[in-house]
Order: sequence, then C-alpha cells, then structure tokens
Amino acid sequence: MYTIGIDLGGTNIAAGIVDDNGKIIMQGEIPTGSERGAKAVCEDMGRLCLDLVQKAGLTMDDIESVGAGVPGIANNEEGVVLFCTNLGWHDVPAREYMQPFFNKPLFIENDGTVAGLAESVAGATKGCKTSVFLTLGTGVGGGIIIDGKVYSGPHHIASELGHMIVEADGDQCTCGNKGCWERYTSGGALIRGANALLADHPESLLYKATGGDPEKMSAKIVIDAARENDEQAKIVFDRYVEYMAIGIVTIINFIDPEVIALGGGVSRAGEFLVQPIREAVAKKIFYKNVPYARIELATMRNDAGIIGAAMLGKDNTLAN
Amino acid sequence: MYTIGIDLGGTNIAAGIVDDNGKIIMQGEIPTGSERGAKAVCEDMGRLCLDLVQKAGLTMDDIESVGAGVPGIANNEEGVVLFCTNLGWHDVPAREYMQPFFNKPLFIENDGTVAGLAESVAGATKGCKTSVFLTLGTGVGGGIIIDGKVYSGPHHIASELGHMIVEADGDQCTCGNKGCWERYTSGGALIRGANALLADHPESLLYKATGGDPEKMSAKIVIDAARENDEQAKIVFDRYVEYMAIGIVTIINFIDPEVIALGGGVSRAGEFLVQPIREAVAKKIFYKNVPYARIELATMRNDAGIIGAAMLGKDNTLAN
Repeated sequence: MYTIGIDLGGTNIAAGIVDDNGKIIMQGEIPTGSERGAKAVCEDMGRLCLDLVQKAGLTMDDIESVGAGVPGIANNEEGVVLFCTNLGWHDVPAREYMQPFFNKPLFIENDGTVAGLAESVAGATKGCKTSVFLTLGTGVGGGIIIDGKVYSGPHHIASELGHMIVEADGDQCTCGNKGCWERYTSGGALIRGANALLADHPESLLYKATGGDPEKMSAKIVIDAARENDEQAKIVFDRYVEYMAIGIVTIINFIDPEVIALGGGVSRAGEFLVQPIREAVAKKIFYKNVPYARIELATMRNDAGIIGAAMLGKDNTLAN
Repeated sequence: MYTIGIDLGGTNIAAGIVDDNGKIIMQGEIPTGSERGAKAVCEDMGRLCLDLVQKAGLTMDDIESVGAGVPGIANNEEGVVLFCTNLGWHDVPAREYMQPFFNKPLFIENDGTVAGLAESVAGATKGCKTSVFLTLGTGVGGGIIIDGKVYSGPHHIASELGHMIVEADGDQCTCGNKGCWERYTSGGALIRGANALLADHPESLLYKATGGDPEKMSAKIVIDAARENDEQAKIVFDRYVEYMAIGIVTIINFIDPEVIALGGGVSRAGEFLVQPIREAVAKKIFYKNVPYARIELATMRNDAGIIGAAMLGKDNTLAN
C-alpha cells in the first residue's frame, strides 16, 4: 500500500506517492495560484493526487490515506485549515473540498510539524522519542515531536517557535509583536543584517557579491562571505549564531528534546553554521553538567514536506 | 492506602501523609539545614516520614509510596537528584540515602513540576490534559503537564520556564545568562523595580510603606500600592504585566496548553494581576481568532507541593 503526501506552499503545491519504505515513487508539482481562492486550490490538490496515481500506474484503491502539510495551522480531526496567513486562508474546510476527488482519510498538519515528523522517522532525529525541528528559511518554523507523535497542542497552535519573543522591545515582526526570534534567525535576518552594513562597506565581500544592490543580497552570500572571514559578514553571522543559541537554550529550557534538527535554506551552511551554534549554546545552557539536546543538521531537505505529510496517515504518528 | 509527599525547600522540609482523596491527614515541617550536607538532609526526610506515620497512628505498611519535590532537577528512574543550585546538591543519591528508613518506591521530581501535577489533578487545571503551572516567587518556576502526565524531558531539564530569554542583552541573571524571564516576572523583579524608583519618589506609597528602606520592600507592598493607583507602583506593576504577557505568549507559541495556572507568592495579588495579564496576552497572541490557553489563578497554594509529590506515586502521573 501507499500513502500520498502533499506539501502546500505559497508558490507551489508539491505532492508525492510514498511507499511503505518511506520512498517517493512518483512526484509532481503545480503552481498554488492562491489568488483563485481556497476551494480552487484544494480542488487542485485533489486533482494532483489523482494525476500522480494514474502516472504511477496505480488506482486510488492502492492508496491508504492522504496527508497535507500547510503553511499555517489546522484542525486535523475536523479536516479544516484554521489559518494560513500567506495564503489568506481562514477556516477552510479542506477535507470537504477534496473529498469529491477521493474518499480516503485526509490528515492535515502544519508544514514545520510535518517536516519534523519526517526527520523523526527517517532523518536527523530518527530513533528519538522527543525532538524539535527548526526550518530556517524566509521565516523560522518549528515542529515538535513528543513521544514519537507530532505535537500540535489542544488548540492546534503549538510549535510557532519563530515567534517566541527574544527581545521585549526588539525589531517589529510581521505578526504584530516585537522581537520575535525569526527577526534574528531567519534567512531574511541575514539579508537585512547584511544590507544594513552594505552602503558603508564597499570593501566588503557583501558589496562585491551584490554590486552594492540590496535586492541581490541572499543568505548564501552572507554565509559564503563569512566563510572567507569577511569582517562585515562575520558581524552579521556572529549575531545570527548568538540569537540562534538564545532561542535554542529556551527550547531546551522548555521541552528538553533529545535532538534539535536544523533544516531550511540557511541550514545548507552546514557544520560551518552548526558548530558555532553548538559552542554558543554550551556557554548559555542552564545546567552545565547535565546532558542536553544534540544540535544536528536535518537530513531530508526538500522531501521532508512530502514524506512527512504522507506519514501522517500512518499509525501512531498523531497525538490523541 | 496512603502516600507521603515531601516538599524540600531551601529553608524547610515539609511533608504530609495524603489519603486516596488527595487530602493531607497529617503534616509536619523541619528546618532543612542544608549546610549539613545532602546525606543528613535526606536522612532527615526519611525520619520525618517515619515520624508522621507514627503520629497518624499508621505503620509504613499503610504507605504505598513516597514522593519528593525538590528545588532542582532529578532523575526519577535512578532516584538521584541531579542538581539543586540553592542546596548545593549535585548527583545526590537520595533514594539510596532514604532507603534505610523505609523500603518503599520513592519518586523525585522538580518542585514546580510537582505543584503543576497537583493543580492538574485537583486544582486550577483539573480536567485538562495539557497545562502549564507557573510559580511566581523569589524566582519563576514552571511545571508542564502533557497528556495528564508530568513532563520533565529526556534529560530531566525541561520546564525551566523562568530562564527563557526575553531580552537578549537584558538584566544579568544568577544563571549566568542575561535577560531571563524571571528577572522581570519574579517577586524579586517587583522588589528591584520598586527599589530603583524609591529614592527619587518620597511622595510614593512605596516610600511610605518602607520608610524609604529598600530592605523593607516586598512584592505585596508594590501590588498594594498599585491597587491604590500609586504612580510609581503602577510603572513597576505595568512593566511586570507586560513581561508576564511576553513569556505567556511564548509558552502558548511553544506548547499551546489548555490552561496556564499562576501560583506562588505574587499570584496572591489575584484577579487584580491576572486580568491585566489576560488583556496584554490577547494583544500579543499570534493567532488572533483561534481559541488559546485560559490564564487562571492556581488554587492549591502551599499544599500543592506536598499533595503533588504524594501524587507522583499514583498510576499514570509519570511519563514513560
């Protein structure tokens, strides 16, 4: 038997058919087109599933269940997407919209949670009962696995780790609060930090790589320049590491996971990023002589969204 | 049958025999005397239990188990107190030290966790599967209950909520980091805040209540003066409320509990404190139109420590 995983993003919908070994045997992608409204997008998700099943030479009878990771929060029991800020969704009855395409169990969860599940079953946190996954991208998302099950909380709003407040009167966040962690630890934070120094430092590698154009700045440019020991890039990078450590120490002080896995675009910096984070966390950890969470790179990259969503239909991955 | 609960504090050891209805039928208290070393204190805890059993006209055959809440962290499986900063304890084999006094199952947990368990079984969070208890005293402690069980994390260091960092470069904390939440939300924070304004404001009720002597300042004086609309006290109180809201929003963004219960000395301010905290949280909450944790006063007061510790021996209160 197979399960289908859908990774709903602001730009594209990716989906894949996953076999019992957790391998994607067929996958596809279509534009989200969120301007058409939630119903049209949900119907496209349904059609994409049927399309993939056909291409794989299967029928829906071969499919056990369908799971979707969404960039927001969902009430899985009701099959309703409660909120997706980027898509403008609020109380979208996704299961109802998709049911005409197939009558299969449909599971919906936050995309960070879904990726955390994938890592905990087959990636960096495999074998851990309790783990936290962080996706360091445009923003910062989180996924919490407790006792081997995805943890979303009774109101489905848990694991919004990017919005923990680390500076009471800090930078304005898009969420309305100030000083949210993602203001300092997203890919966007690296870009903003570098651009703030750009005009005054034409000697910097940051300037050379962008020709002084802030629009051309990327997290990768900042990290590559920091690798070359560029002075300005190091300032931005070191600050990034410091704030990563602050949030990770708070994660440890909260739920003390076995492993914290770092995924998302910024994590492609690899050990160059993770090792200084480990060192900064060691300095800040509350109990200095007691073991605490390992900090590791996520290993499943882009497939985590599809595979994790497909896993939602498997036994024992959802909390009661 | 009965269980015994021990509440180990820096100043006193309180203990009580608790019946199947969760009522304390006999209780006693002795000085901790931590300067004598961990073994002597553990032996005193053992003797106190025997003493109470005798006074109640029982024998140890009537006692199912003994639980202890400690101001630090413990490995319950091993019966070892890993760390109690205030007592200077590190890797104390408490079970081994107490076993000569009685051969009963001994359970050890963090005191905030234990009080959270008591509240979740018989207090403010009764009936909730998932709740957070905060003790607002000299410092700020936390207890997390997930799925009806105490949550301590795989390394036993979870729920140190007072040490989440809310100001990356904020006030120096005793733990070595800067900007820990308890620097702004403990009873000590109210005292420090009021004392910082004292000398410049002889007209303030804060001054009148203390005669201008910082040593005489208390959290109660600040709260009572704020009730009277004293301008300086209101500044300190409003700042306290603001920081409480910041931390509570982060708790919600993490684990989204059903209820957050406020206990400890500062919580005696009652609804005068809790209502403005609720209003400040409502302004900062990430998902504005989705239900989230109720914020309530803890109801079990001082007995929570003994009753919660006694409950550790009951089925299904400990995570696997």
